[in-house]
Amino acid sequence: MINLRLKNVKNASNIIKGSEYIILNPNDYKGKWNKLFGNQNPINIEIGMGKGDFIIEMAKKNPNVNFIGIEMFDSVMVRAVQKLENQNLDNLKLIRMDATYINDVFDREIDTIYLNFSDPWPKKRHEKRRLTSHEFLKRYDLIFKGSKNIIQKTDNIGLFAFSLQSLSTFGYVLNFVTLDLHQTKTEDNVMTEYEKKFVSNGVKICMLKATKKA
Amino acid sequence: MINLRLKNVKNASNIIKGSEYIILNPNDYKGKWNKLFGNQNPINIEIGMGKGDFIIEMAKKNPNVNFIGIEMFDSVMVRAVQKLENQNLDNLKLIRMDATYINDVFDREIDTIYLNFSDPWPKKRHEKRRLTSHEFLKRYDLIFKGSKNIIQKTDNIGLFAFSLQSLSTFGYVLNFVTLDLHQTKTEDNVMTEYEKKFVSNGVKICMLKATKKA
Repeated sequence: MINLRLKNVKNASNIIKGSEYIILNPNDYKGKWNKLFGNQNPINIEIGMGKGDFIIEMAKKNPNVNFIGIEMFDSVMVRAVQKLENQNLDNLKLIRMDATYINDVFDREIDTIYLNFSDPWPKKRHEKRRLTSHEFLKRYDLIFKGSKNIIQKTDNIGLFAFSLQSLSTFGYVLNFVTLDLHQTKTEDNVMTEYEKKFVSNGVKICMLKATKKA
Repeated sequence: MINLRLKNVKNASNIIKGSEYIILNPNDYKGKWNKLFGNQNPINIEIGMGKGDFIIEMAKKNPNVNFIGIEMFDSVMVRAVQKLENQNLDNLKLIRMDATYINDVFDREIDTIYLNFSDPWPKKRHEKRRLTSHEFLKRYDLIFKGSKNIIQKTDNIGLFAFSLQSLSTFGYVLNFVTLDLHQTKTEDNVMTEYEKKFVSNGVKICMLKATKKA
């Protein structure tokens, strides 16, 4: 059994390395992820999966879709690994990496990118670090297989306004926008850890679905 | 002097008819508004000008742009007429009409449409009445001269989310989006009556600037 009160990042790193869900050498699978999954199902990724509630639930609910969770920090990723103990999900893999280098790992094979409660990087000089900046959208352009699909949720209205503007000026069409997700009728919304906390505190969640033609 | 406590709509109607700013037969000027203004300056319109604070201030600040304020209700329009007493603005005209019939009045001669604090028509079955519905965007397509410019402000997050989605799926690019205008650095923002009240109550104002190529 894993110690649930684990705080030590060094230990986290070892636990992560021991998980069958973790892909330690993701660059080796560039352009070959469908082979790894052993099927031709669509591949959806979440950049910044945190503790993994969203992507694990999505993988369980959608067995005919492959999911890859990406997270930069061992300290939160270990929580996802713990949750996956004794689970048997063939359609889920996890990668510990900085999304800046996403083009080293994927090549025209992704269907949808999920961005949930990403770091807003509120300072103007950090704009390029936001996961919906044109710098990141250019990187994403090279990883999508066909039409480009981005689905974002956030409670941060600064980041959300930036994303709407950035996606639209980059050629994406906003097919769905809400500024209060939990007052909007939607199909099955899978909640992240943050989202559960925000909703219980009455914080409004913004969501967009954007598509750019192939 | 006009009685400032005027409540009587019948009286309002007479006062409106007596104002030099009001165009009583707007259909006669379809395609000829630049002739009426006597110059080739751009023509910007506000649909739903209410009591006129915004459009009067805009006309004062921008003498090289022509403005036309449109309002359906005598009872609020009369307030704008009162404010214009003893003012001498050559670049401002007002029309009392229902914007549904805007194609009877303008033909490929408008530069920018302002939509400030429009009725949100929150019920799904009234969606077509929202001033950013595809029904209205189709009407607007025929009144713009060159590139199509729409600038919207609202405190209503339901209407704002709808507008973002509707404009984007209609081919507009969102060049500017904020979900908290008064926390965002912008050039000179001219406030409407509603906006002054909302801002003093701490209500967040959303704003978008959308453009569609000619």
